[in-house]
Amino acid sequence: MSIEIGSKLKDIILPSDLRKLKETDLEEVCSDLRQYIIDIVSVNGGHFAASLGVVELTVALHYVLNTPYDQIVFDVGHQAYGHKILTGRRENFHTNRLIGGLSGFPKRSESEYDAFGVGHSSTSISAALGMAVASAYKGEHDRQHVAVIGDGALTGGMAFEALNHAGIEKSNILVILNDNCMSIDPNVGALKDYLTNITTSKSYNRFRDDLVSVLAKISKNGPNAYGWAKKLQQSIKGTLWENANLFESLNFRYFGPVDGHDVNQLAKTIEDLKHIPGPKLLHAITVKGKGYALAEKDQTKWHAPGLFDKITGEIKKTIHEKPQAPKYQDVFGHTLVELAESNKAIMGITPAMPSGSSLNIMMKAMPDRAFDVGIAEQHAVTFSAGLATQGLVPFCTIYSSFMQRAFDQAIHDVALQKLNVVFCLDRAGLVGADGPTHHGAYDIAFMRCVPNMIVAAPMNEEELRNMMFTAQLPDKGPFSIRYPRGSGVMPDWRKPFRELPIGKGHKICDGEEVAVLSFGHIGNEVVKAFKQVSEEGIHPAHYDMRFVKPLDEELLHQIFAKFQKVITVEDGCLMGGFGSAILEFMAEHNYQAQVVRLGIPDDIVEHGDQEELWQICRYDATAIAEEINKLTAGRKTQTLVG
Amino acid sequence: MSIEIGSKLKDIILPSDLRKLKETDLEEVCSDLRQYIIDIVSVNGGHFAASLGVVELTVALHYVLNTPYDQIVFDVGHQAYGHKILTGRRENFHTNRLIGGLSGFPKRSESEYDAFGVGHSSTSISAALGMAVASAYKGEHDRQHVAVIGDGALTGGMAFEALNHAGIEKSNILVILNDNCMSIDPNVGALKDYLTNITTSKSYNRFRDDLVSVLAKISKNGPNAYGWAKKLQQSIKGTLWENANLFESLNFRYFGPVDGHDVNQLAKTIEDLKHIPGPKLLHAITVKGKGYALAEKDQTKWHAPGLFDKITGEIKKTIHEKPQAPKYQDVFGHTLVELAESNKAIMGITPAMPSGSSLNIMMKAMPDRAFDVGIAEQHAVTFSAGLATQGLVPFCTIYSSFMQRAFDQAIHDVALQKLNVVFCLDRAGLVGADGPTHHGAYDIAFMRCVPNMIVAAPMNEEELRNMMFTAQLPDKGPFSIRYPRGSGVMPDWRKPFRELPIGKGHKICDGEEVAVLSFGHIGNEVVKAFKQVSEEGIHPAHYDMRFVKPLDEELLHQIFAKFQKVITVEDGCLMGGFGSAILEFMAEHNYQAQVVRLGIPDDIVEHGDQEELWQICRYDATAIAEEINKLTAGRKTQTLVG
Repeated sequence: MSIEIGSKLKDIILPSDLRKLKETDLEEVCSDLRQYIIDIVSVNGGHFAASLGVVELTVALHYVLNTPYDQIVFDVGHQAYGHKILTGRRENFHTNRLIGGLSGFPKRSESEYDAFGVGHSSTSISAALGMAVASAYKGEHDRQHVAVIGDGALTGGMAFEALNHAGIEKSNILVILNDNCMSIDPNVGALKDYLTNITTSKSYNRFRDDLVSVLAKISKNGPNAYGWAKKLQQSIKGTLWENANLFESLNFRYFGPVDGHDVNQLAKTIEDLKHIPGPKLLHAITVKGKGYALAEKDQTKWHAPGLFDKITGEIKKTIHEKPQAPKYQDVFGHTLVELAESNKAIMGITPAMPSGSSLNIMMKAMPDRAFDVGIAEQHAVTFSAGLATQGLVPFCTIYSSFMQRAFDQAIHDVALQKLNVVFCLDRAGLVGADGPTHHGAYDIAFMRCVPNMIVAAPMNEEELRNMMFTAQLPDKGPFSIRYPRGSGVMPDWRKPFRELPIGKGHKICDGEEVAVLSFGHIGNEVVKAFKQVSEEGIHPAHYDMRFVKPLDEELLHQIFAKFQKVITVEDGCLMGGFGSAILEFMAEHNYQAQVVRLGIPDDIVEHGDQEELWQICRYDATAIAEEINKLTAGRKTQTLVG
Repeated sequence: MSIEIGSKLKDIILPSDLRKLKETDLEEVCSDLRQYIIDIVSVNGGHFAASLGVVELTVALHYVLNTPYDQIVFDVGHQAYGHKILTGRRENFHTNRLIGGLSGFPKRSESEYDAFGVGHSSTSISAALGMAVASAYKGEHDRQHVAVIGDGALTGGMAFEALNHAGIEKSNILVILNDNCMSIDPNVGALKDYLTNITTSKSYNRFRDDLVSVLAKISKNGPNAYGWAKKLQQSIKGTLWENANLFESLNFRYFGPVDGHDVNQLAKTIEDLKHIPGPKLLHAITVKGKGYALAEKDQTKWHAPGLFDKITGEIKKTIHEKPQAPKYQDVFGHTLVELAESNKAIMGITPAMPSGSSLNIMMKAMPDRAFDVGIAEQHAVTFSAGLATQGLVPFCTIYSSFMQRAFDQAIHDVALQKLNVVFCLDRAGLVGADGPTHHGAYDIAFMRCVPNMIVAAPMNEEELRNMMFTAQLPDKGPFSIRYPRGSGVMPDWRKPFRELPIGKGHKICDGEEVAVLSFGHIGNEVVKAFKQVSEEGIHPAHYDMRFVKPLDEELLHQIFAKFQKVITVEDGCLMGGFGSAILEFMAEHNYQAQVVRLGIPDDIVEHGDQEELWQICRYDATAIAEEINKLTAGRKTQTLVG
């Protein structure tokens, strides 16, 4: 791949190279870096708008700070492409998010410049505080620790927990609030309005001017810096009750708002802040997609647009797209609206993923019944529980890996009270390019152990619709439905609704010698595997269990009465998952069959295409066929001998 | 039990009876209620100081609001005894926390006055907001929804998530901040300082006076109430940037601080607030333990003191106490200090449970190395991960049921990065009187499915010490150790440290025909069971596996080579737990033994003594002995026949 690299960027292999440049060069570095990101993401795909928005911030941080000794934690990490390109990974950047290539997120094992692995939101302040406290404890008082967090990520409760703790620690920590009014979708919540108010408030702007003048004095009076900082602190304290703001309330010293695209001002401010002790917050106003007009205009679309023509902005269809079958997400979104039209009790809830989950379809059609509650999974679930106490039927759609954030609420607020909350666990199973932080690997195991929880997974779009239909019928209790990222298998998916009996699986095909039991969409790989083995004259039986909880015991008794060899297949972790549920059934009823369980092994699965990862984890069609062959090898030999 | 009931309290069976009284009677009602709580808790046990602190608030709420149509959600619920006594449960209150009796927490299935089941912290605003949004949707505009939340619970991130969302909803919700500067231990964090500042701030007091005067006008001008409220709203908005506070920042209208022990003022204020639309926060200053001098003085000790002489304040020893063996918590606390003395990398972290977990021992001995981070499990784990990136070895002690709150952080921030964080999962297994919200039922299942995570459980105090010793040795990676609430079995527990090989179990005794495999402290019930069956001439083998992950495969091969009958015993959920791990091993190696798994069934286990609950769940010594008998019945018959 030949991408032209701007002349100022060309010689920057590591931040130490950047630091050799003059301040007057920084704007050009930013311009080169921005262009490089546009060039490479347009042909390579990946997250786009977030990194464009922090080009200046990234350059300023690496210019001023002594990275990697000084440590920067990027929250979520969508915005860290510039950081990766400046820290020794430019030449490999074309492998970003490809199998075996760079991770789409900062990752400790990838670079010493990645101080903390990220992916999920709102972790950066906690992590940076831990580092800062450790440095203080070890006497490394010159060391800087910075968390770069978006205004969206700041709505996540753990960010607040961290601010509350940081406010009483004496450690030096700098939180840079990258305020672009966006999550993946437009940011929501009272905090967003508040930040806008700060930005437009005259008293705050006055306050900021005072601040800048004091900071200037600090810079000039190097050796007296500490004294000046103290004075600054007192001045802030003095005005606290006149100019109190949320961050000051939590004992942070607040600086800003500053223009997040003025690299020289940023560099100067960060330099100044290095010398001010204690917890500090710098509020930088940025534009997501900055420098690429289309992205500035439609930031959600350009969050991760796929491949595009950088000149025309035309977004290209990816090779793997199957236009015939819809995405599960869209089936969810349209079906929810369809159900909500006749059942007035249905409400929709998403924690900050309206476009990703397709809840935006309902938000548009029924704005008073669909809620984006911000990056706030815990609240999303308990808010849903509150709705359910009033006889409503909330559909709470959460990505499987983010559901890990709301596990306690699912137990404590929903399951213990047997409330009718429907969990739509999106992106369950291996998700592909987003990699280990985002794989929905564990939900079968962790939802299955919750009492009163129904745990279902559709094998196709029609089943998803029918599960959703069934879940909203009266008094079903806590009901979870897991489905994968991406497209289904049914071009003609909008079938009439049909109630599915809870805890009932069904036979896909009769067969002999081996029974394959699958849970969810991965059953389609079993169907493919059967085509492969049928050519060799092997005809196993296939059962789609639909529910891992409650299990279809009647069907299982039939299966184990007939089969001595069983394969279970799931797009989830083997440890404690669907296959284990089958083993538990067997133990309880003292069945003695040979069981081979296929699914995600007890290891970190890296990023890559979904199909590639299924292959690596050995539960794609070919691997399933191989397991069937292994189990039937004895029979074939016997037949030959016979 | 004959407890004298004050004359004003006597006739109050339900809140409707309370509402028949005159305002001038309310102080006496409070006095009677407070005395009743003291009388009954002193002889019956339970949570104490929190309920004393909200007597006036509870009476005022039920006096002014039309409960149960109007809905009150008590956060955590430690403080809800007064509420229970006023809502039809006075005559049953002596059964509080006893098996088959009242729950120690509000519980929907117990009373229609319990709008939401609680136990874990920080859920009330989310739940009340859900209710308020549902009421608005259903057109029940007269309905009131109140969350009563302590300043400790407000540090939990999900409370902030809920405030952020509530601030943009138009629903009527009243958050009452019960500010007593305490969690179970003294509250910590920047927010606490902030609330103290508000309380002592002159401008806030002035602001409050203005407010009260406007409120008075509202009361007098009934029909114009809405107009006045609007005016009030504007007046607040106008002063926002002069008097901004944290709650105003989030679009709540802030009222207070008010004296939380002036029942008449509270009643009047709550009445006024009923007529003000939108999200409101009333800041009430209370004293935890109010009215019982000893409790006011030592609030942590009197949070849940057990039985006591109400006159002298002498705390009685409970019948079940075994003074010979220490609590696991104290073994943890003392051992951590002992280890930290020689390993300077060790740090201690607790989310708001210093006394409960006994981390207070380290906080006293090494204040710079032990952190109470507030009610903030998510932050606690990621903060620990941050420390670990710097080569430190954080011991993060969290109750098993609260670990459900930090599950994502354990995966995403610790396990994926293979960081050396030691999770000490306290109160793992059934906890007793606190009941379903607090049972540590699921941690084996949900920790076991996390890659890189070592999952261990000690059978006794010495093993706990050795596991802690082993976990702090270099490069052990993520390491979790679960131990139960309460006393161990070794009076002489302070043995020299010994490294335990990771993933190795050990044989407790040889035996024949049946092998019993146990995980953790419940192995002691197996030992007792063996005494019972040995009298009948039955001598099974017993293995303490110590680690459910990694499993001791070598030992398991030996066991399954010898035994066709196996019993697994765990103080954890059967679904996906220790027994299932054994079944997975068997499936992988195609062993065909009969396995009986004993543990917590897939159902809600209510409150009661731990031993009683083990018996109900059928994994106490007697139940284990019975299972052994069942499995060996064939042999005995054979022997007799032979």
